[in-house]
Amino acid sequence: MASSWRDSLPLETMAKERQNPPFNVRAMSIAQHGTEKELLLKEKFMLEISRDPIFYMGDVHDLTKDQLRERTMAKIGSLVHCVQNESIEHFTKRMELIGLFDPGFWTRFGVHYGLFLGAIRSGATANQFSYWMEKGVVSCKGMYGCFGMTELAHGSNVAGLETTATFDEQTDEFVVHTPNIGATKWWIGGAAQTATHCSVFAQMIIRGKKHGVKTFIVPLREPQSFQLLPGINIGDIGKKMGRDGIDNGYIQFTNVRIPRAYMLMKHTQVTREGQVFEPPMQQLSYVALLQGRVSMVVDTANTAKKALTIAVRYAAVRRQFKSSAEQEHETPILDYLLHQRRLMPLVAQATAFAFTALNLTKMFEETSASLEAMEPGPEMDRALEQLKSTHISSSGLKAHCVWQTLEAIKQARLACGGHGYSSYNGFASMEADFAVHATWEGDNHILALQSGRSLVQSYLEALEGKKSGDATDYLNDLDNVLKRKCKGGDALLDLKHIEEGWGTVTAHAVKKAGEDYQSHIKAGKSKELAFEEASQSRFVAAMVHVSGFIFRQFKQAVERMEDKGDGVKEHLTRLAVFYGLWRMEEQGSFFLRSGWLSPADFDAVQAKVTDFCADTRKYVIPLVDSWSISDHVLNSPIGRWDGDIYRAYFGRVRQQNPQLKAHPYFEKLIKPFLFRPDIELEDYDEAIGIDDEITEIQEEREEAAAEAKEAAEAAKNEK
Amino acid sequence: MASSWRDSLPLETMAKERQNPPFNVRAMSIAQHGTEKELLLKEKFMLEISRDPIFYMGDVHDLTKDQLRERTMAKIGSLVHCVQNESIEHFTKRMELIGLFDPGFWTRFGVHYGLFLGAIRSGATANQFSYWMEKGVVSCKGMYGCFGMTELAHGSNVAGLETTATFDEQTDEFVVHTPNIGATKWWIGGAAQTATHCSVFAQMIIRGKKHGVKTFIVPLREPQSFQLLPGINIGDIGKKMGRDGIDNGYIQFTNVRIPRAYMLMKHTQVTREGQVFEPPMQQLSYVALLQGRVSMVVDTANTAKKALTIAVRYAAVRRQFKSSAEQEHETPILDYLLHQRRLMPLVAQATAFAFTALNLTKMFEETSASLEAMEPGPEMDRALEQLKSTHISSSGLKAHCVWQTLEAIKQARLACGGHGYSSYNGFASMEADFAVHATWEGDNHILALQSGRSLVQSYLEALEGKKSGDATDYLNDLDNVLKRKCKGGDALLDLKHIEEGWGTVTAHAVKKAGEDYQSHIKAGKSKELAFEEASQSRFVAAMVHVSGFIFRQFKQAVERMEDKGDGVKEHLTRLAVFYGLWRMEEQGSFFLRSGWLSPADFDAVQAKVTDFCADTRKYVIPLVDSWSISDHVLNSPIGRWDGDIYRAYFGRVRQQNPQLKAHPYFEKLIKPFLFRPDIELEDYDEAIGIDDEITEIQEEREEAAAEAKEAAEAAKNEK
Repeated sequence: MASSWRDSLPLETMAKERQNPPFNVRAMSIAQHGTEKELLLKEKFMLEISRDPIFYMGDVHDLTKDQLRERTMAKIGSLVHCVQNESIEHFTKRMELIGLFDPGFWTRFGVHYGLFLGAIRSGATANQFSYWMEKGVVSCKGMYGCFGMTELAHGSNVAGLETTATFDEQTDEFVVHTPNIGATKWWIGGAAQTATHCSVFAQMIIRGKKHGVKTFIVPLREPQSFQLLPGINIGDIGKKMGRDGIDNGYIQFTNVRIPRAYMLMKHTQVTREGQVFEPPMQQLSYVALLQGRVSMVVDTANTAKKALTIAVRYAAVRRQFKSSAEQEHETPILDYLLHQRRLMPLVAQATAFAFTALNLTKMFEETSASLEAMEPGPEMDRALEQLKSTHISSSGLKAHCVWQTLEAIKQARLACGGHGYSSYNGFASMEADFAVHATWEGDNHILALQSGRSLVQSYLEALEGKKSGDATDYLNDLDNVLKRKCKGGDALLDLKHIEEGWGTVTAHAVKKAGEDYQSHIKAGKSKELAFEEASQSRFVAAMVHVSGFIFRQFKQAVERMEDKGDGVKEHLTRLAVFYGLWRMEEQGSFFLRSGWLSPADFDAVQAKVTDFCADTRKYVIPLVDSWSISDHVLNSPIGRWDGDIYRAYFGRVRQQNPQLKAHPYFEKLIKPFLFRPDIELEDYDEAIGIDDEITEIQEEREEAAAEAKEAAEAAKNEK
Repeated sequence: MASSWRDSLPLETMAKERQNPPFNVRAMSIAQHGTEKELLLKEKFMLEISRDPIFYMGDVHDLTKDQLRERTMAKIGSLVHCVQNESIEHFTKRMELIGLFDPGFWTRFGVHYGLFLGAIRSGATANQFSYWMEKGVVSCKGMYGCFGMTELAHGSNVAGLETTATFDEQTDEFVVHTPNIGATKWWIGGAAQTATHCSVFAQMIIRGKKHGVKTFIVPLREPQSFQLLPGINIGDIGKKMGRDGIDNGYIQFTNVRIPRAYMLMKHTQVTREGQVFEPPMQQLSYVALLQGRVSMVVDTANTAKKALTIAVRYAAVRRQFKSSAEQEHETPILDYLLHQRRLMPLVAQATAFAFTALNLTKMFEETSASLEAMEPGPEMDRALEQLKSTHISSSGLKAHCVWQTLEAIKQARLACGGHGYSSYNGFASMEADFAVHATWEGDNHILALQSGRSLVQSYLEALEGKKSGDATDYLNDLDNVLKRKCKGGDALLDLKHIEEGWGTVTAHAVKKAGEDYQSHIKAGKSKELAFEEASQSRFVAAMVHVSGFIFRQFKQAVERMEDKGDGVKEHLTRLAVFYGLWRMEEQGSFFLRSGWLSPADFDAVQAKVTDFCADTRKYVIPLVDSWSISDHVLNSPIGRWDGDIYRAYFGRVRQQNPQLKAHPYFEKLIKPFLFRPDIELEDYDEAIGIDDEITEIQEEREEAAAEAKEAAEAAKNEK
């Protein structure tokens, strides 16, 4: 079809959005990525995968699960090269991008390099580690690992796993066994088609005594033939909501024997005689836990930015309705206030998540480096206290960021109307792939409760006069903090004042949870039961705390920035205020309940949020540009940088659905349906003549009866 | 694997949940379905589809899009028989169940019988209707229709469609044409593979003058061969988020000629000479609009019940953690307070949606029947006013119920942890299929704004002394309504008092929207712009109004029930109170803002909601049983009635993923990867000897230069 002015309108519209941005876009992009080096690295990786044919993603939505699995396997070979030749820092950065671009592949690669190798790194003795190195665990030669933790009937409660590993003293072996269906290892990524080995979590039993869950390396397949080893039963878990590139499987062990030395013994040791040495109480490794959770927050920020880049660009060029008959073209939907209300707060939120992740990454890099250099003493105690304080927030942080991002993807999709429902625009798979984040790496609700529990503990400690760390400093000077009130007016635009508001409201929520807990303790309940009874208030406390925590991270990040007069600091400050007020509106009942906001202040917050939506709209295209996600990584025709969405989307649809020469089932199904014969409404009663026949039969019977009666009467008379 | 006591534990656990229900379960089921007749009919249909092999759904998650399309087509033949031989009432009921069971098929069937036939019914003259009847539109013989409204660049704004139908006076034909890519008909269900005809919405142009959008029946394919007719270009839209059983396509018309009589002329007529007769102002058909929206609400209630039945049953038998070491088995997750907080309010909400749908269905059935019998006059005016009052709520109602149900499916899925992520448990497809409800039949946000606009209008009318209808009766006696306050304590358990609270809070929200609108009018803005500026407050007003509206529907339904001493009315009353309070908590900021709830009352509401969660948990298994959704319709092993979830789920996974004799790509990809040669890290510089060579070249050059210099100097000396 010939192009017309109508087809070019989106391009012109988009170009106008980029005229005179109120900040230096490159400088904004550097600020959002932390440093120029980070940005350049990301651009390098984006260029590389865009030219690597194995990373073509235009057709993924039309691949079957089996095709996707095969292609995903082929990518592993391409990336292993980078593991072996790139610094860990660069490779981590590359994986961050890959996680955004192809989450299924990221997972399949991660089960070996993250989980399996990680299990060996943290659980093996030095000799054991050398052994597995020689076997090829780092180069991924001759072996590929999977991670056997969850079971069909056991997830979050690792201590409750039912797979057993029983020590056989005679042969110096462990016997790994699945006792019932519920104990089948389930969801094991890589098990169905890839893995040769598995790090199996199992209840260790020695001389009839249970010693709790330990980790055992169990060979699954002979690597040259891929035959299952004796006693191993593996099946495919099949179709999932998303991430179909990873081959999750189930594993059942039936009296599988492994050498004793295949138990990872860095922590617990088992001697030839079956003597068990348990480790002294292990200190929680805050750094490792924190690192894992922060990487999830990084992914939430990246994914939210991806979804929002598409929705915001689409809204800038999609037109609908005119406000008067004179208007030349319909109005871009981004100009409608409600559409701004739908998307702009999410833009501020994604920015807040990203700065939170940047801050935390930097913080624990610095802290763990300085911890290594420190001698035990008050300085180290302070550093550890700081780490612990951040850790309290991190479990709730993972939960909150994942939930909000899942919602943001959905809102971005819905904001694109029908086109959001097309697989080719990427939201469907983004949502489906992302959804599992709420469940793995600690179920969100359980993490939120953990966070709430830590907050209650901090509250109780504060009552006893202990000074709380940075993240919960609102618990210090509690009486005054609880009494603070909003000053209203322009104070609502002041980062410091908003921070105070969050402090006050969180203090109220934490106090409520603490009092809730205490009341059950006073009523004679055990600690466990008192915490259980206080679940809802703990949960609320954690959720309020997290929003305030993220706001403070954002605030600190912009406050640290130098103002170079390029508009960057100014606009990020606006976004931080916007975020703080929008969350205040969202969690308005707690702000009103605590008295920090009066009803009039609440109205003012709502009005300011609406103003910020309109303000952000003005520069939102340059802003999402500064997030710097290439068209190839976006993989969404309606999110194109240049605004040429309809031609691109139409082109992608045609490319993926070529017009067929022959209809696949017209002759088989449609023609016979359209030209089916009428069902003959024959009158079967008439055709068979059943009614006349019934009459005849009845008449005959009556006659016979009459005859019989006559005969009987005659006989009677004869008697 | 041999069964063990462990494998049977779920069955025993579930059986215990059904001991001594506090209400008669069958009576509860009848109450929830409206009448016993309705329940029996549903049970009849469930039995029928469970025995019809074409309706087997155990394998759908592993079908490709193409396989699903073909199977879906085959179902049409099976169901057409019912259309032709069943009363409309029964068939509507059957389709309601099918919509829950197989939404993709429901859509594919609906594009002909609902949309295409509906367009002809409402738009054709009597003669035109007879003509299409004879062509086979009702029996679906020789023709199958699709509905050509949306275009690639045009959705909600039907008046802005760009496809043209230009009258050619010479030939007495309309020429249907797609002028640019954005005007391509898009998302047309049934177009890609099924339809022979399309009801095309196009701008009618006669003698150069545009007459607005009218409907034209355009033949697409020759039915005997399925060849596209001249000027028709159709392609497949391909993969979607959900409902892949329906073949959405795009259509481009290039100067396609149709007879003038193929324009539907019930409303607008075009004569042979091109004279246009426009209809007098059409009155909005509240009944039809209402009916469409109520059928959406019915589907939201059904779908939410399906998702929650699965999640609740799973939670009853899934165990996790012990609260003390002495506990025999782990605790069922349904016993945790936070898990109850996640699911129980959604159970109350699904019940509220269902009663709302029942009430409205009954109301408009009665009203439209009595309207037919009435003469124009005050009685009819009252009936129409009642209808209009309900209609104001219905657009916001559709939006709210769809959003909440989408969220409920997600929460139900997340509450099942990892197993919620398996396709075989049904949540992924339920969510993906359902999601489109937010976009079609009126985009949710646009509908919510419409509802908000009507509320503002009612407010302005009330200011002028006009009495508001039932749904907005809180606008009558406004000054007093606004001042009401919660009485606290046990008044919060009183349906009437809760209703007053909703009235007061909604009145505040509507007043705010009205004042917002008025302020912009006073500032000199046009009506359109004033409504636009008041978007956010309109939206909030609509959302608060809807929750109150649903609560009142629920309240009225239980109040009308006779108390037979069987526990039904008692427990439904509790659920109604629960729902009213939970929504109050959810929208707490408006209740606190308006002053109806004091901070202490708000705490009381939260505490009561927690209590109701624990209360509902006690009888929630019999309650979801009373929703009467068969295992076949649930199609989710972890939602099984008998609780035998692990064996069933494991069985389904194995059935759908048989263990293969040969690995699909071990030889091709995995073996070459695991045994790849080391890349020779040869020292190319050394091997080639390039550095020595460079030295040699340099030395030679230096020598030559020295020689040249010597020669030059010698020559100079010679001079």
